[in-house]
Amino acid sequence: MPIRTGQEYIQSLRGRKLTVYLFGELVKDPVDHPMIRPSINAVAETYDLAAREEQLASPMSKISGKHVNRFLHIAESAQDLVLQNKMQRKLGQLTGTCFQRCVGMDALNSLHSTTFEIDEKHHTSYHKKLLEFIKQMQEENFVIGGAMTDVKGDRGKAPHEQADPDLFLRITKRTKDGVYVKGAKAHQTGCINSHWIIVMPTMRLTEKDKDYAIVGAIPADAPGITYIYGRQSCDTRSMEEGDIDAGNSKFAGQEALMILDDVFIPNDKIFMDGEYEFAAMLVERFTCYHRRSYVCKTGLGDVLIGASAAISDYNGIPDVSHIRDKLVEMTHLNESIYAAGIASSYQAQEMKSGVWLNDDMLANVCKHNVTRFPYEISRLAQDIAGGLVVTMPSEQDFRHPVAGPLLKKYLAGRKGIDVENRVRILRLIENMTLGRNAVGYLTESMHGAGSPQAQRIQIARQMQLGYKKNLAKSLANVKENADETPENSDYFKRVFKIPQK
Amino acid sequence: MPIRTGQEYIQSLRGRKLTVYLFGELVKDPVDHPMIRPSINAVAETYDLAAREEQLASPMSKISGKHVNRFLHIAESAQDLVLQNKMQRKLGQLTGTCFQRCVGMDALNSLHSTTFEIDEKHHTSYHKKLLEFIKQMQEENFVIGGAMTDVKGDRGKAPHEQADPDLFLRITKRTKDGVYVKGAKAHQTGCINSHWIIVMPTMRLTEKDKDYAIVGAIPADAPGITYIYGRQSCDTRSMEEGDIDAGNSKFAGQEALMILDDVFIPNDKIFMDGEYEFAAMLVERFTCYHRRSYVCKTGLGDVLIGASAAISDYNGIPDVSHIRDKLVEMTHLNESIYAAGIASSYQAQEMKSGVWLNDDMLANVCKHNVTRFPYEISRLAQDIAGGLVVTMPSEQDFRHPVAGPLLKKYLAGRKGIDVENRVRILRLIENMTLGRNAVGYLTESMHGAGSPQAQRIQIARQMQLGYKKNLAKSLANVKENADETPENSDYFKRVFKIPQK
Amino acid sequence: MPIRTGQEYIQSLRGRKLTVYLFGELVKDPVDHPMIRPSINAVAETYDLAAREEQLASPMSKISGKHVNRFLHIAESAQDLVLQNKMQRKLGQLTGTCFQRCVGMDALNSLHSTTFEIDEKHHTSYHKKLLEFIKQMQEENFVIGGAMTDVKGDRGKAPHEQADPDLFLRITKRTKDGVYVKGAKAHQTGCINSHWIIVMPTMRLTEKDKDYAIVGAIPADAPGITYIYGRQSCDTRSMEEGDIDAGNSKFAGQEALMILDDVFIPNDKIFMDGEYEFAAMLVERFTCYHRRSYVCKTGLGDVLIGASAAISDYNGIPDVSHIRDKLVEMTHLNESIYAAGIASSYQAQEMKSGVWLNDDMLANVCKHNVTRFPYEISRLAQDIAGGLVVTMPSEQDFRHPVAGPLLKKYLAGRKGIDVENRVRILRLIENMTLGRNAVGYLTESMHGAGSPQAQRIQIARQMQLGYKKNLAKSLANVKENADETPENSDYFKRVFKIPQK
Amino acid sequence: MPIRTGQEYIQSLRGRKLTVYLFGELVKDPVDHPMIRPSINAVAETYDLAAREEQLASPMSKISGKHVNRFLHIAESAQDLVLQNKMQRKLGQLTGTCFQRCVGMDALNSLHSTTFEIDEKHHTSYHKKLLEFIKQMQEENFVIGGAMTDVKGDRGKAPHEQADPDLFLRITKRTKDGVYVKGAKAHQTGCINSHWIIVMPTMRLTEKDKDYAIVGAIPADAPGITYIYGRQSCDTRSMEEGDIDAGNSKFAGQEALMILDDVFIPNDKIFMDGEYEFAAMLVERFTCYHRRSYVCKTGLGDVLIGASAAISDYNGIPDVSHIRDKLVEMTHLNESIYAAGIASSYQAQEMKSGVWLNDDMLANVCKHNVTRFPYEISRLAQDIAGGLVVTMPSEQDFRHPVAGPLLKKYLAGRKGIDVENRVRILRLIENMTLGRNAVGYLTESMHGAGSPQAQRIQIARQMQLGYKKNLAKSLANVKENADETPENSDYFKRVFKIPQK
Repeated sequence: MPIRTGQEYIQSLRGRKLTVYLFGELVKDPVDHPMIRPSINAVAETYDLAAREEQLASPMSKISGKHVNRFLHIAESAQDLVLQNKMQRKLGQLTGTCFQRCVGMDALNSLHSTTFEIDEKHHTSYHKKLLEFIKQMQEENFVIGGAMTDVKGDRGKAPHEQADPDLFLRITKRTKDGVYVKGAKAHQTGCINSHWIIVMPTMRLTEKDKDYAIVGAIPADAPGITYIYGRQSCDTRSMEEGDIDAGNSKFAGQEALMILDDVFIPNDKIFMDGEYEFAAMLVERFTCYHRRSYVCKTGLGDVLIGASAAISDYNGIPDVSHIRDKLVEMTHLNESIYAAGIASSYQAQEMKSGVWLNDDMLANVCKHNVTRFPYEISRLAQDIAGGLVVTMPSEQDFRHPVAGPLLKKYLAGRKGIDVENRVRILRLIENMTLGRNAVGYLTESMHGAGSPQAQRIQIARQMQLGYKKNLAKSLANVKENADETPENSDYFKRVFKIPQK
Repeated sequence: MPIRTGQEYIQSLRGRKLTVYLFGELVKDPVDHPMIRPSINAVAETYDLAAREEQLASPMSKISGKHVNRFLHIAESAQDLVLQNKMQRKLGQLTGTCFQRCVGMDALNSLHSTTFEIDEKHHTSYHKKLLEFIKQMQEENFVIGGAMTDVKGDRGKAPHEQADPDLFLRITKRTKDGVYVKGAKAHQTGCINSHWIIVMPTMRLTEKDKDYAIVGAIPADAPGITYIYGRQSCDTRSMEEGDIDAGNSKFAGQEALMILDDVFIPNDKIFMDGEYEFAAMLVERFTCYHRRSYVCKTGLGDVLIGASAAISDYNGIPDVSHIRDKLVEMTHLNESIYAAGIASSYQAQEMKSGVWLNDDMLANVCKHNVTRFPYEISRLAQDIAGGLVVTMPSEQDFRHPVAGPLLKKYLAGRKGIDVENRVRILRLIENMTLGRNAVGYLTESMHGAGSPQAQRIQIARQMQLGYKKNLAKSLANVKENADETPENSDYFKRVFKIPQK
Repeated sequence: MPIRTGQEYIQSLRGRKLTVYLFGELVKDPVDHPMIRPSINAVAETYDLAAREEQLASPMSKISGKHVNRFLHIAESAQDLVLQNKMQRKLGQLTGTCFQRCVGMDALNSLHSTTFEIDEKHHTSYHKKLLEFIKQMQEENFVIGGAMTDVKGDRGKAPHEQADPDLFLRITKRTKDGVYVKGAKAHQTGCINSHWIIVMPTMRLTEKDKDYAIVGAIPADAPGITYIYGRQSCDTRSMEEGDIDAGNSKFAGQEALMILDDVFIPNDKIFMDGEYEFAAMLVERFTCYHRRSYVCKTGLGDVLIGASAAISDYNGIPDVSHIRDKLVEMTHLNESIYAAGIASSYQAQEMKSGVWLNDDMLANVCKHNVTRFPYEISRLAQDIAGGLVVTMPSEQDFRHPVAGPLLKKYLAGRKGIDVENRVRILRLIENMTLGRNAVGYLTESMHGAGSPQAQRIQIARQMQLGYKKNLAKSLANVKENADETPENSDYFKRVFKIPQK
Repeated sequence: MPIRTGQEYIQSLRGRKLTVYLFGELVKDPVDHPMIRPSINAVAETYDLAAREEQLASPMSKISGKHVNRFLHIAESAQDLVLQNKMQRKLGQLTGTCFQRCVGMDALNSLHSTTFEIDEKHHTSYHKKLLEFIKQMQEENFVIGGAMTDVKGDRGKAPHEQADPDLFLRITKRTKDGVYVKGAKAHQTGCINSHWIIVMPTMRLTEKDKDYAIVGAIPADAPGITYIYGRQSCDTRSMEEGDIDAGNSKFAGQEALMILDDVFIPNDKIFMDGEYEFAAMLVERFTCYHRRSYVCKTGLGDVLIGASAAISDYNGIPDVSHIRDKLVEMTHLNESIYAAGIASSYQAQEMKSGVWLNDDMLANVCKHNVTRFPYEISRLAQDIAGGLVVTMPSEQDFRHPVAGPLLKKYLAGRKGIDVENRVRILRLIENMTLGRNAVGYLTESMHGAGSPQAQRIQIARQMQLGYKKNLAKSLANVKENADETPENSDYFKRVFKIPQK
């Protein structure tokens, strides 16, 4: 029976044999660890939303013929891509953090077209196996993690050139039943909260890297996997008594290092094996989906704008013109991100396999704004919050019989405002601008789905300077042969494409 | 017979009895005036494009049952709005300037729903008359100007409070056949190049302003109209010999002051008369369309990026990393504008009258970016261009038997580059960043369709702080009554709306 | 015997009877508390620097006739103000955090001229008492804290209008020997690490606020004072084993809420009592000094630039052009802050009392840049750092016999780089951009010495629009009476003043 | 007898035999050319200021023992450099344009130390000849132009590698009396308004470029010189009737191409000849002075802020909060430039020759801000101005008997405001943001004294990453050998230098 609710999801995680290190100790059961639990809660919310808002989050899938969680759905139209974005924004609003499932969704969708095109060339059967896998996941309603980022070692060298061959995930052994892989994947969002994990190469490969050209699905608790939990700013506040200082006590993100030591992948779960020339295609399609998935951050932006509005209320100055103006600026920046994301989804195209792929130029523009605007929104939130956001005493002091009443007397704001509520909102702002969820709202906005320079390279590849130079030369009456540089992009074809009804 | 080509359009402008002042003199025929002609050429391009690219620029209209110029088309779907944007970008690319027809298009579309809703309330018949007018325009294939911006006088006062009642356009006399109007409309884009002009109120009106609540269509050469031509930076270069110094010798924009001295509007061309409470609706819907129409500037941006790439080529440094990086930044900013515009169009809704209206929040976000990014793109273009862009001698010096060869010797750049071509591209950059088309690319990007503060007000009205505060309070565990402030916006309803297939 | 070294300073703090709450408990001795100690170390560094670099940090004082710590020195020239800035930058470089002594220095300097001018008007003897107090402090070489910011309650109301009269510090009782004060001071930088604290009003006062117009010096351990320690992001990492995860294990800032419950100030330590009309002068002169004191942040900026350069080294990509370009941008922004600070100090003027006061316009410009540029520098540092900065496991995992070697294997970077050093630098970047010292580098840069809007108000007061309008009108040949608006600033007099040699 | 006033200066320019091309014709006498005259007026103002404000603009020179125009003065102290900046700001305020004399001043000052150091190495006598030349200039009170920027041809090639050897100025012939030079200098600010011109190499030279290593002084009307006048946006408005449309009818800048065809330099006017290894030193010192000279733009900024304040007044909305806020922002940016400039001057050092040289890092920071902030100030000015700034009719229309009264009726603003004055201020804003002086305020701010990338290179050379990495490693407890990279800058030595009284 499939998992139907957040509660059932949490239950499904219990009793697995995971090797997870945290603070130098093996974690008994992640579900019960107070520092890990908020990240599980965030994933659970993706189940509850699907149950609550079917049209938004539970589309009908052609693959299984059922309503499935959108995170397991293959996009059958541009509209499906747009609805991914809308669901992402909604979940960002509900959790104020990273809910960890976009990588899996984007991996499935990018594999859909890539496996199809590998099969087309190599007469392999990856696509069929993938569809079977997706169907199985949909029927169980599992969480899929996508493991792409290798640890990389010396960044100036290819996988096969590294001093240690394990610095990129690779096949170490083959049997008739499948392959064994070894290596490590860094910054693995939500990996411990996943049921299955799809490993994928992280960059363009050459023939000599053939053993690194492996894509396959593995249960998260497969033998040979070790997880080492990543620290986040203020993470241990989740382990303190009380629920105020954490800022957002219910929800958080999760990043871990995932080490694979000769982990087995059976043949029916292998979706690429050696077709190195398709690694770049897979990475590019994945990042195309994923850079636009950062629309989720506008949901977090909505929360932070709301918190800023609330604190200005509590401080008694909501209508001061410069405060209002800052809230407008925050909104403007937030919606600029949203706009680029959904524009990318709307300006999608159908791939040979039938899956839809959003526009790559606009996906990069979206993500590039994500590496800038949340920082400015965060700065403005701190401006509105006032200095108290970083000088408030601990919740224990508020609960202390002597210190508590002093704090309530002296931190009183506008009449009728409860001091504790004021503190709670300030702690939420701290959480999102300096604390645990600042990791997701800021630093992962910077580096997730590729650092800023990666977007600039991708924008550069698509900017069609030849096309544009010809426009300029025509208007300037420059008489010379038209620039014949072949363009490595068809962006303007997409821009000016007329959709057929 | 309808106008079919740019040439026929230009022909159609001849022989009209227009009163146009320019440099203190009456212009004999604008079509032949060298300073005016480039603006006519830009409009002509809208005809030629429609002929050349039917799907993009000549949709089938339900009203006349014919393919019509998109500038005369009522949007029958979100897709129609998206295609408006794509046509706008294309025309921006082709002309490098303002082609002057968006105001008319946006006026017709906003009147479509507004007249329908006036009729619904007041049992008037404006909508039917409007449809008749649109049909007639489609059949003749005319250019419509939209005249909204009154000269306004003292900005702290309502129309009826002004020292001079004519500072907003108003009805001065009524007969059984129609009304007479008096006043002046400022910054009238393309008015002299239009066949018909629709006058509209410029802001929210009250009962005392009833005589100002007038909408009607007037032939551009109606008795009583005086046009006084607006100057633009470097405008007289169009009157000099040669075609280099103008930068873009073929195309330019047009702005004029239009003075109406008891101009007659017959009953069948009146689309609002006294229903003052609908003035705000009309203005808001018009600006909603129009702020997103500024996607046209991304077409100009494409030209300027192309010119910058071309000059870096000519200078021999196209692959220098900081130059490349600036071209990427220009592209990123340009596409951020485009994304917000088409996102607004895609996230459209159908109005009662059947016309589609794009998203207002995103339209304002689009336009607000337009008040910023073209300035930065322009700054970067000047950076790439080098100082020569403002120190080059005149074309006449290049043609002079002594000075010319000296210039060719000393302004030689990379081998094989023709000095004149280098100069032409630099003059185009000057044209778009300081010269005649900088007016359109920069200053009108700032103020057209409302100055920046107007967008901020509109964003503020829609930012739904109550909704967002509740998100924050929920995550911060703030226990207090939910904020019950009624929201004056349903932006998030639009965001989370599931489209019905 | 005066305190001579950091060690002696730390010793001097022992055995005092301070009431300090932290995490709901009374702190036994702050000196030994692992979370407090780093803040004490930062102050200790101000002693060691003074011993090490006499010319920079130990000027000769006219008051005591001795070399004294510059933080206790009254500026006898513009050069003295410049050297304050240089010392501040140096200490920022050495500690990477807030060393907490600028408030005291700026308080003494602003009281120097203010008490002189009060005496001049009221024939009081505050100035003499102040000099005596300064001399005493110089002889003991004590740390002075300055307590200005009241908790303020309802920000729309004056002190005497508050529901609770204690929301601003006020005199509750008078005896022949002195006065008793009650109230609370928020965000008290380094208060627990100070020997003496000077209380001062926080804003312009009116006659009805007379009891709030009190300035006086109090020992930090005076009876009736309660301190409640402020939390900082990641503060408890200082209490964990190991020294890596803290990022900067040696140094940190300190902020606390200081509550005064009928604390006695003897007559000889009172420097204002009831002269409410001088409250504004004191606040303005204090903020004038203090806004320029934020040059200290350029020292922190130097550290963060250094850390970014180091990590790009470790990652093996120091010479990549976009990395280099970001380091240049960080430097440019950092030096822009420094420049405005020292320009303000250089463009100083002598006050009636003989103390020098830096330029107020430029001080505000300096601080206003401090509310912006460190955020951008921090964003760029995170960009350069890479995602690992927020996903690294804990130090305990690195020390674990199983997990540690796995981490060392898989987090290896460029050859020859020690993984632990890479981690240490990343933790320092985390510390300054999200962690404990981000509080000082970012949020206190925003709000310390006044939030951004406070600087804008002060810049507005000095921008001399009348003067500038006359410049414009003259060039535009506007014939009208010159604008006679009296200017409430003599900024341009200072700009164009010719120094007498 | 020396020139004493602006009028005498103008007189001194008459009757020279200059070969000047403009619009394809030889100019009879530049003094009487309506398009050239405003640039002469701007230089004349430097004379009048010197007469009016002796302390600011006429220091006592050790060289001639007389009060001399500061533009001819060798800086004898840091204070002298600061006063250069203050004079520059004042002249920017008075003229609203480029007054063209900074290049000459900065050339003399950089030659002072460079010739001294050449002599020291090569036992030449350039320094003495230079002093003699300066003395002569001071006695005649002449205007010196500095000609540095060669036309450069293919930017990827050294002077001696160019296809045409004349693309950098070079010696073509030697006689016992002197040398003959050939080549062309681009973007020559104020060259036609100068009495003497100093030619200098434009970049680092190698031994093979020995013939290009020439510095010498030439009368502006020396035989063999041809000037070709550079066009500026809206330049021909100076040739129209009336004084409104020019915006700033009295003052403008001047840029020309200067072509030298075997021009003779006598031995006593040669200050470098073949010492190629000193070319880089000369260029670096010159740009060090000159990048800080861009403080002049803050004077233009003052005018533009004033114009913006005036127009908001005329529009009746000076106290609207967003307008006020924009004026504050403009001021903040303007003063940030000023601060960096004077900070550079204050943090100066004495050179071996006795001249003072301002701080190079801060000079680059100043100029780099100049390539950004004036564009933003200009954008904000256009925002405040409103759309009318680019749609106003010509002055001739205002003077026309029919059109004029219509314009006055309909362009009326707030009561009591003269429409013509409103127009005049708008034309000034146009002049500075799009028109003739936008060339100086924007594009020359970008490229004068080196384009933005040139400053970034210079900042990079001085950013002392080794020093900063050591700071970071120390705080992060990184145990490794200190970074021993030799720093090619002593910036922090200057920062932490203690001035000796």
